[in-house]
Amino acid sequence: MEFPGIVLDASLYSKSRSPESGTVYDLLIIGGGPASMSAAIYAARKMLNLAILATDIGGQMRETSDVENYLGFQNINALDLVARFEEQVRSFDLAIGTEIRVKEVRKNENLIAAYLEDGTVFSGKSVIFATGERHRHLAVPGEKEFTGKGVSYCATCDAPLYREKKVMIIGGGNSAFTTALDLSRGNSEIVMVNYVKGWQADAVMQDRIRNYAKAQMLDFHEMVHIEGGDKAEAAVVRRRDSGTEQRIPVDGIFVEIGLLPNSDPVKDLLRLNEKGEVIVDCACATNVPGVFAAGDVTSVPHKQIVISAGEGAKAALSAYDYLVNASLI
Amino acid sequence: MEFPGIVLDASLYSKSRSPESGTVYDLLIIGGGPASMSAAIYAARKMLNLAILATDIGGQMRETSDVENYLGFQNINALDLVARFEEQVRSFDLAIGTEIRVKEVRKNENLIAAYLEDGTVFSGKSVIFATGERHRHLAVPGEKEFTGKGVSYCATCDAPLYREKKVMIIGGGNSAFTTALDLSRGNSEIVMVNYVKGWQADAVMQDRIRNYAKAQMLDFHEMVHIEGGDKAEAAVVRRRDSGTEQRIPVDGIFVEIGLLPNSDPVKDLLRLNEKGEVIVDCACATNVPGVFAAGDVTSVPHKQIVISAGEGAKAALSAYDYLVNASLI
Repeated sequence: MEFPGIVLDASLYSKSRSPESGTVYDLLIIGGGPASMSAAIYAARKMLNLAILATDIGGQMRETSDVENYLGFQNINALDLVARFEEQVRSFDLAIGTEIRVKEVRKNENLIAAYLEDGTVFSGKSVIFATGERHRHLAVPGEKEFTGKGVSYCATCDAPLYREKKVMIIGGGNSAFTTALDLSRGNSEIVMVNYVKGWQADAVMQDRIRNYAKAQMLDFHEMVHIEGGDKAEAAVVRRRDSGTEQRIPVDGIFVEIGLLPNSDPVKDLLRLNEKGEVIVDCACATNVPGVFAAGDVTSVPHKQIVISAGEGAKAALSAYDYLVNASLI
Repeated sequence: MEFPGIVLDASLYSKSRSPESGTVYDLLIIGGGPASMSAAIYAARKMLNLAILATDIGGQMRETSDVENYLGFQNINALDLVARFEEQVRSFDLAIGTEIRVKEVRKNENLIAAYLEDGTVFSGKSVIFATGERHRHLAVPGEKEFTGKGVSYCATCDAPLYREKKVMIIGGGNSAFTTALDLSRGNSEIVMVNYVKGWQADAVMQDRIRNYAKAQMLDFHEMVHIEGGDKAEAAVVRRRDSGTEQRIPVDGIFVEIGLLPNSDPVKDLLRLNEKGEVIVDCACATNVPGVFAAGDVTSVPHKQIVISAGEGAKAALSAYDYLVNASLI
């Protein structure tokens, strides 16, 4: 793992242990993004015996370029920020497992069990489920290559970079039009591209963009590929009825075709909303005592790093309160 | 204003303007702590015309010594962290007023007005109320002098500093006993001091501390003063019946005698809970459309800097959504 700028001290890694399937942990934290890491810091300081079960450290932050809206850092490379977070977490003596894919979470009596694909089971007296979400991808050539280099999935994060510039927005629903509105406030030139025939956003949102002089609407079009050098420079789109292709030079491309919360492992255990997000209250409690959830996988609106960090801290303190009140520690 | 370590570039101050009472702002942010600053960053990036009305920049962070639980900083002096936050906020061209004490917030039609003591009025199309809370103080000699130097109001923040050490806890309610439990997990020696006759915490909490071998309970005692050199070293307490005084050497003193949310300016406008906190939902909405609240003044549990930062970001994004949906921007 290489981080530009920050290199983790190798001794930090030797301090962390692998999670053990024979141990009953006070707390299992499932996920490796900012919610998980903030939770780990709070739980470790409460002296909980905890294990982190993560596919990777950083989560969606690994798909981002620069971060300018995390309080404390005016501008920082996302991987540098992940490295800082990780360094802080690894300063505690914790069990941290990566490349661990939890298949299902179940509760048996007072214990909560995380089952992996291969049959391994990890057990905890409490759990924080913080697996994040993933953006639906276009799956066209150039998309992955230019992610964080012109291709973005977060208007709140990246719209400020494209003021007075030309931007393509993929999608026809409310999130696509919200992105368009955000960009219109920065006087960006906008090209909207909708795959299905007919825009799906609320009429009032559509009207505001149609009335914006610098918006072009391409209905019933599909993205063919994204071109560029160091960063994205143009998109080739195709009319789906005629098959006509055109190459449109752009400075940025926002992909707004849906979000998928990574809630599959808890779909039979926890109450989910219509989007598939875990429903939590303001203390990060779910419908199952001892199981908490935090960050982008939850029903809390507005998916942002700093919000996930706050929610993770809340979840850890709520888990601690639960363990104290249930006399489990 | 002097910050050890970080000195703000003077040009940053010249960039900020004073709030004007004649302007109708898109957003008024009332308060100057981490919730306010995180909200300001998100709102500024959404190009909202906003004003911050604060008594000071930093809020309760100014009463803290080191911060070790804010994701991104393993250990940082609290005033250094305030300076970093402030620098980031002042990098935007914003109206920032300090030493502004809002007396009352009212809503008239679609406009929200913040009234100062001297009759000045600031107007906004939306408001984020983030005035924080204050800890009840003992008001004894030495308390203020040793705040952040042995005297603490936050066990979650500072208990890890006192493992294996001797600590006095002032208070007889649940928060005092929660603090005691936290410290007992670090094997601290504990002296509990209760002003009224009879402990108020739940019996189950009391039992756990009474069963802890290293706890001493001083009921019906009052603090006389706190002594020390560079940091607190001892407390003098007095039995309230006999008047007998004793000097107890301690490494730290936790004051847990209550929290007062700074919700007075909105007590006639917003729904408050029994603690006087502004009731918010998970999107930081209050019962009044266009009025949002964030941070320690709200009903969100667990008062922490990183939680306030997350809540501030949420409130700003919710305020932006409100302004868009109500066609106010």
